[in-house]
Amino acid sequence: MTGSVIVTMMTEALARPHVLSLAAGFTDTASLPADAVREAVAGVLAGPEGKTVLQYGSNQGRAVLRDAVAARTAGLDGGGATPEAADVFLTNGSQQALHLAMQTLCDPGDIILVESPTYFVFLEILQGLGVRAVSLPVDAAGRLDPEGVATLLAGLRRRGEAERVKAVYLVSYFSNPSGNSLGEEEKIALAETLRRAGFHCPVIEDAAYRELYYKTPHPARSVFALEAWADFPKLYLGTFTKPFASGLKVGYGICDTPDWLARMLCFKGHQDFGTAHFNQALIEQALAAGSFDSHLSRQRERYREKMETLDTALREGGLDGLGWEWSRPTGGLYLWAKSPAGVSTAMGGDFYRQCLDEGVFYVPGELCFGEGAPAGDWVRLSFGVLEAEQLREAAARFCRAATALATPA
Amino acid sequence: MTGSVIVTMMTEALARPHVLSLAAGFTDTASLPADAVREAVAGVLAGPEGKTVLQYGSNQGRAVLRDAVAARTAGLDGGGATPEAADVFLTNGSQQALHLAMQTLCDPGDIILVESPTYFVFLEILQGLGVRAVSLPVDAAGRLDPEGVATLLAGLRRRGEAERVKAVYLVSYFSNPSGNSLGEEEKIALAETLRRAGFHCPVIEDAAYRELYYKTPHPARSVFALEAWADFPKLYLGTFTKPFASGLKVGYGICDTPDWLARMLCFKGHQDFGTAHFNQALIEQALAAGSFDSHLSRQRERYREKMETLDTALREGGLDGLGWEWSRPTGGLYLWAKSPAGVSTAMGGDFYRQCLDEGVFYVPGELCFGEGAPAGDWVRLSFGVLEAEQLREAAARFCRAATALATPA
Repeated sequence: MTGSVIVTMMTEALARPHVLSLAAGFTDTASLPADAVREAVAGVLAGPEGKTVLQYGSNQGRAVLRDAVAARTAGLDGGGATPEAADVFLTNGSQQALHLAMQTLCDPGDIILVESPTYFVFLEILQGLGVRAVSLPVDAAGRLDPEGVATLLAGLRRRGEAERVKAVYLVSYFSNPSGNSLGEEEKIALAETLRRAGFHCPVIEDAAYRELYYKTPHPARSVFALEAWADFPKLYLGTFTKPFASGLKVGYGICDTPDWLARMLCFKGHQDFGTAHFNQALIEQALAAGSFDSHLSRQRERYREKMETLDTALREGGLDGLGWEWSRPTGGLYLWAKSPAGVSTAMGGDFYRQCLDEGVFYVPGELCFGEGAPAGDWVRLSFGVLEAEQLREAAARFCRAATALATPA
Repeated sequence: MTGSVIVTMMTEALARPHVLSLAAGFTDTASLPADAVREAVAGVLAGPEGKTVLQYGSNQGRAVLRDAVAARTAGLDGGGATPEAADVFLTNGSQQALHLAMQTLCDPGDIILVESPTYFVFLEILQGLGVRAVSLPVDAAGRLDPEGVATLLAGLRRRGEAERVKAVYLVSYFSNPSGNSLGEEEKIALAETLRRAGFHCPVIEDAAYRELYYKTPHPARSVFALEAWADFPKLYLGTFTKPFASGLKVGYGICDTPDWLARMLCFKGHQDFGTAHFNQALIEQALAAGSFDSHLSRQRERYREKMETLDTALREGGLDGLGWEWSRPTGGLYLWAKSPAGVSTAMGGDFYRQCLDEGVFYVPGELCFGEGAPAGDWVRLSFGVLEAEQLREAAARFCRAATALATPA
């Protein structure tokens, strides 16, 4: 197995402080909620449970926090079927839930259907497990294309690969890497296409960025609440710590299929028999005290400003004039930009090396695609961790690299 | 896959507060270090890093804490080869390191050599991965028997199974479940026996209880420091949180084989890309402030008292007179008792049900053995979590059950 790209990038970012990283998916440092965490610690240790929050907890996680997850998700959906606390399990970031899902569903040679683009660490997980990622076709506007999907599914069935398809994976809110969100109608059409083709596979909806909208929530309900998905096994993923304090590492999964949930919990029992109990209690306390939500409100505004800072700096640096294309997201931590024809953004390529020479990192788009991806080259630019001045400098470096590599007119 | 026994037991223990559990391996609640954690939180947030401890950390873990692990382990060994910070990785409890080791070493059908008895959750991990646990033979005194081991290894080779042996696993300090520690000469003889038989497999030394001695450390050095093991791939496991605050969940592995370490880190990158950064910083702070070690000193005394309370209550309840046998451990959290001939301690058996009727849980010894275990029936009695009065009551209930099931003379 080769090294993990995310680990390599995190290590590079930590080790080369002079290089400005638009690659690392870190969160905003300046606004990390030290006061809220201090208060939560004081609150839990002075609360009715007292020091018992420092004892082991249960494998599935604290019941009150699982209740909060269920209620919060139902609130975000605002209608349709709602999850229950018994469906919820708490994990070491939502990443662990994703990994448990793959461990329980997949054998080597199996297939997961993914978006184009999709979360690149998920593709690494699949690669590590010997599982194929097959891209769901999109139309010219980048939307899921039901006819293309139907053709893909028919082809899989014709080649005897239908039984190898173990799940469809959707990063449906302010996606990592594209910033794109799926519309309710897109999700419904996908369910209907799968059903018509006889693919009744589990759906995994990764909603890690759902609450990181800038002004208004993305209006689409989750697959949990959509009637079209009612008879599919479902796993919904989220995190409390990316929008709050990423160093606390508490995520969750919600699974409506008891047997699948039991198998994930069995694996988790072997891996760690429970996420740090103290951290769960801190999140529970911050939610109850309101500090979680007041912090989140400020984060939304902060990430919107950062996005605008980077977007503006790239435009002022002339990137769009060089033929690069991107749109402004309405939530999340990423700009997803397409390079002009002839400029490869591949890892280790001319443009990548030029960027390193200028002192700026990005995530090459090639890492974000499964089999059958559309042609073209992209970059993921993360604006989560850098401060405004650094974002402007990183954008200037990126634009200089793009100018140096631009094809003469 | 069947449910995890540890998870079932933890759930039962949490759900049936009227039953006194001598099964759950929880830690002492009354002495949980609320003040030390409060101070550590204040210390890290006011320290030079400030709120950045709430940001993501690295996959391998904080360098200063990895340094501390290496130095602490070298100090415990007091001689021989010493590990370096680069060999150390920080995990969600030492359990995660153990699981990563198995994921990277084993395929279904492989074999791990284990002690009799061994850590039962480890056996569950192996079962989950389709891996066989084969017991290392012991002599009448319960010590590793080099001749028996040589015969076992020869048999494995004869049957063409030598290449399937992927590691030897030792719980060598105040073992879970037996409380037993391996002598230096036992470890050395094992290495020599393996080498002579051409088994040059990795060794995993699980030292989770090493620092939980009551009066003096167990004098044997670890496999890291023993010349006899120098040319074997080695993984040494430990935890900061079992002897401090189990709800913080920070363990570690030390691996001297770069390729194996890299593969474990790659898996960890996929599972969570780093243990909660905040928790690592808290442990680092508690170590630096001295509160970790002063707490540990008090814990040793406390667990010694609890062991003596349970041991005395069982003797006063007449358990030894009924033919039960056990010895007093010199560290750790467990009494390991052998039932008289004719009394099965099996899960769901007469004695097990009698204990439930009386209102006391134990871990059936049968869960703690791999293939080729010695005859006989045992129980693991944990005294970590119950208070003195509860321990006396639990012992009384256990003795009543034993009396009810005793074979008439």
